[in-house]
Amino acid sequence: MKSDISGFPEFLPNEQIVFEWAKNVATKSFESYGFCPMDTAAVERVETLLSKGNDHEIYGLYRLTDPSEKKEFGLRFDLTVPLARYVAKYHGDLIFPFKRYHIAPVWRGERPQYGRYRQFYQCDIDVVGDEALSLNYDAEIICIIIKTLKKMGVPPFHVYINNRKILSGFLKTIVSEQQIVGAMRLLDKSDKLSFEGLKAQFLQNGVDDAKFERLQNFLNVDQRGSIATIIDYLKDLRLNDEFVAGVNELENVLQILKQLDINDNYLRISMKLARGLDYYTGSVFETKLDNVLDLGSIAGGGRYDNLTGLLSDHVCPGVGASIGLSRLIPKLIEKGLLDASKHTTTQLLVTVQQSAHLGAYLRIAEQFRKFGANVEVYLHDKPLAAQLKYASRKHIKYVFIANDVELLDEIGILRNMETKEQQKIHIPSVGNSILELIK
Amino acid sequence: MKSDISGFPEFLPNEQIVFEWAKNVATKSFESYGFCPMDTAAVERVETLLSKGNDHEIYGLYRLTDPSEKKEFGLRFDLTVPLARYVAKYHGDLIFPFKRYHIAPVWRGERPQYGRYRQFYQCDIDVVGDEALSLNYDAEIICIIIKTLKKMGVPPFHVYINNRKILSGFLKTIVSEQQIVGAMRLLDKSDKLSFEGLKAQFLQNGVDDAKFERLQNFLNVDQRGSIATIIDYLKDLRLNDEFVAGVNELENVLQILKQLDINDNYLRISMKLARGLDYYTGSVFETKLDNVLDLGSIAGGGRYDNLTGLLSDHVCPGVGASIGLSRLIPKLIEKGLLDASKHTTTQLLVTVQQSAHLGAYLRIAEQFRKFGANVEVYLHDKPLAAQLKYASRKHIKYVFIANDVELLDEIGILRNMETKEQQKIHIPSVGNSILELIK
Repeated sequence: MKSDISGFPEFLPNEQIVFEWAKNVATKSFESYGFCPMDTAAVERVETLLSKGNDHEIYGLYRLTDPSEKKEFGLRFDLTVPLARYVAKYHGDLIFPFKRYHIAPVWRGERPQYGRYRQFYQCDIDVVGDEALSLNYDAEIICIIIKTLKKMGVPPFHVYINNRKILSGFLKTIVSEQQIVGAMRLLDKSDKLSFEGLKAQFLQNGVDDAKFERLQNFLNVDQRGSIATIIDYLKDLRLNDEFVAGVNELENVLQILKQLDINDNYLRISMKLARGLDYYTGSVFETKLDNVLDLGSIAGGGRYDNLTGLLSDHVCPGVGASIGLSRLIPKLIEKGLLDASKHTTTQLLVTVQQSAHLGAYLRIAEQFRKFGANVEVYLHDKPLAAQLKYASRKHIKYVFIANDVELLDEIGILRNMETKEQQKIHIPSVGNSILELIK
Repeated sequence: MKSDISGFPEFLPNEQIVFEWAKNVATKSFESYGFCPMDTAAVERVETLLSKGNDHEIYGLYRLTDPSEKKEFGLRFDLTVPLARYVAKYHGDLIFPFKRYHIAPVWRGERPQYGRYRQFYQCDIDVVGDEALSLNYDAEIICIIIKTLKKMGVPPFHVYINNRKILSGFLKTIVSEQQIVGAMRLLDKSDKLSFEGLKAQFLQNGVDDAKFERLQNFLNVDQRGSIATIIDYLKDLRLNDEFVAGVNELENVLQILKQLDINDNYLRISMKLARGLDYYTGSVFETKLDNVLDLGSIAGGGRYDNLTGLLSDHVCPGVGASIGLSRLIPKLIEKGLLDASKHTTTQLLVTVQQSAHLGAYLRIAEQFRKFGANVEVYLHDKPLAAQLKYASRKHIKYVFIANDVELLDEIGILRNMETKEQQKIHIPSVGNSILELIK
């Protein structure tokens, strides 16, 4: 991956081809579950961008010709705020439950530093209801994320699941109501903090040793055994109404996942999982690779009670997820898990030996295209050897070779550039089988 | 089409589905000719954006948290400058001729006004050579644009072709060397000027009546008859070397277009066509709908001698074109030429009558998906009538209906929501034929 300005990554053609493939895999997967495409303007009003009280750094816009005049809009930093604004604005035009996906870049006004992107793709799916939305959709979203990642050839991973009501219900028993949000944020960062660091932070906030030990035991609930064992343990705790509601929701989501044929082996319950974003109110989940640990979360999401919040009077609960394609795909390429050797989408290069017969070569290519093949004709005036070298450097797997005599007979040679195998073909007879021949 | 901030258009789902379809048509068409995908960061250095001395209004960026600090970069206003920068920067990594397409938004710091977009999609293809590039590619680009527009179902159109060398060669005979660029810009706007307006402008610049009459005759060359007649007429003129070179290039491009099986009926020679952008140096062309005249040019492009210009020591000639999707598609929808009635990509809705059997419904949907169908399960707890209404409002063509008894027998009803026709299906036997059944 390259970059002209630090933090703004871009791909060379071979990597771009893989990235587009991954976007297509996601698109097809999302559409197979009935999600429709969405695309919003890259800019939003500044007041909209700030409506969730977020802490992201936002790029504002001004016109170069008039630097004193700041525009009232800036670049989006995620695809959730645009979704909220879109649903609020076009509520009457939409059909609920509204299922959409949105694969597009977002921008963060980060200071340039290693591994921090200032532009990256988000790949979001959300289901938004009008006033109510069944918990079934929480399970469907998790199911779709798992199936999509598998279709992308992602190596072994687990989905870590929690419910914010469980966490919040538990935290109520050790900190005050006002401290809950702060405590959740601490838990969200607990992976990055040492045990002592985490403890110090909680002790600072008036949590005594006994309470912290209870917290610690609670966070380690995932080590108690199978998912069923953990659920049973949580059900027995019955700390308060919120806690019980959260456990019920979690159990329900897991049951529906079973009906969706999602094997328990993919799933882990994790009480540590909080997801920093404040708008999550129920299910939360995150997906991590088992062995490529330096990648962190590759997908995550959750349930929110009211997407449109301050933007509208309508109450729109929803559940969604996002796949971090811009980090995931380059890492899979780097680890050799995705093949980025192809520098082209071309399947076949038609070489040109006699430019006087260019028309014949062009017609042959057009015939192959009609049957769905991606075919390039070498239109530059160069000897055959140079044309073959071009095919080889670009990793075009097949070339077609014919001289004027062969053209008259409507025959030619199909050469596999990898195996060097050649076969003679009679052009008019090839038809649909061209796709088989150049596979 | 809707808009939250004036000039930043966005689609409702039914229109977005059509727009994505059009992007896919372009993508497949470009790839079938061996073009590879490209995607660059949305921002470029301000110095890069200004390198072509352009007159577009550019959006600069600043961080909201630090309004005094202007970033050294801004949003791209086209996809050609990013291509030039990309080719200059990664020259050693690319294989030439470099054929790429790029479908992505660009931004213009326009003052908001009717019909002017501040964000819109460009849909570009270019072939870039290293030091040299055959004229054959000029013809290929025109051919691809024609075929792509036809695949999009665009109503009758013509491609207007010219060559800047012809125009420049002619203008040399009536204005000074220094006035040529200005004169070309005038011609480029001649459609918008009255005859008197155009004449006044030229007379102001020292062109006398006799010379202006010659210009006028020259501009009307397209009324002389067939393409062959016009070419013959131009060949006889032999005004100067540049003019002759231009006529030869134009003739060559037209000959190759014939070999590419492009019917003359699609093509028109137009001496009025200049294409305002200064970097064009040879072939120029523009595509206009015959009957939807208020749309102006829907695609255009041309040949440039040196793409990378000030950005690199390499000389990279190229030829490219751009389709104005953001204007074209909404207009085709508005005129009823593209069908935007579908509010969904879902082909089949599986209705749920007994939530106790949710697993069975989910498995049926999953089975249909395996054979390539886009299937939604209605996961919200609502009566069947509400589910059918949802399918109907969303224009989902087929619904699957089964009660618990039918589920046990692995049968169900497939209802066509448009014709109300119903057929009983045995689920395990359906297999691959599901795609036929719900077509």
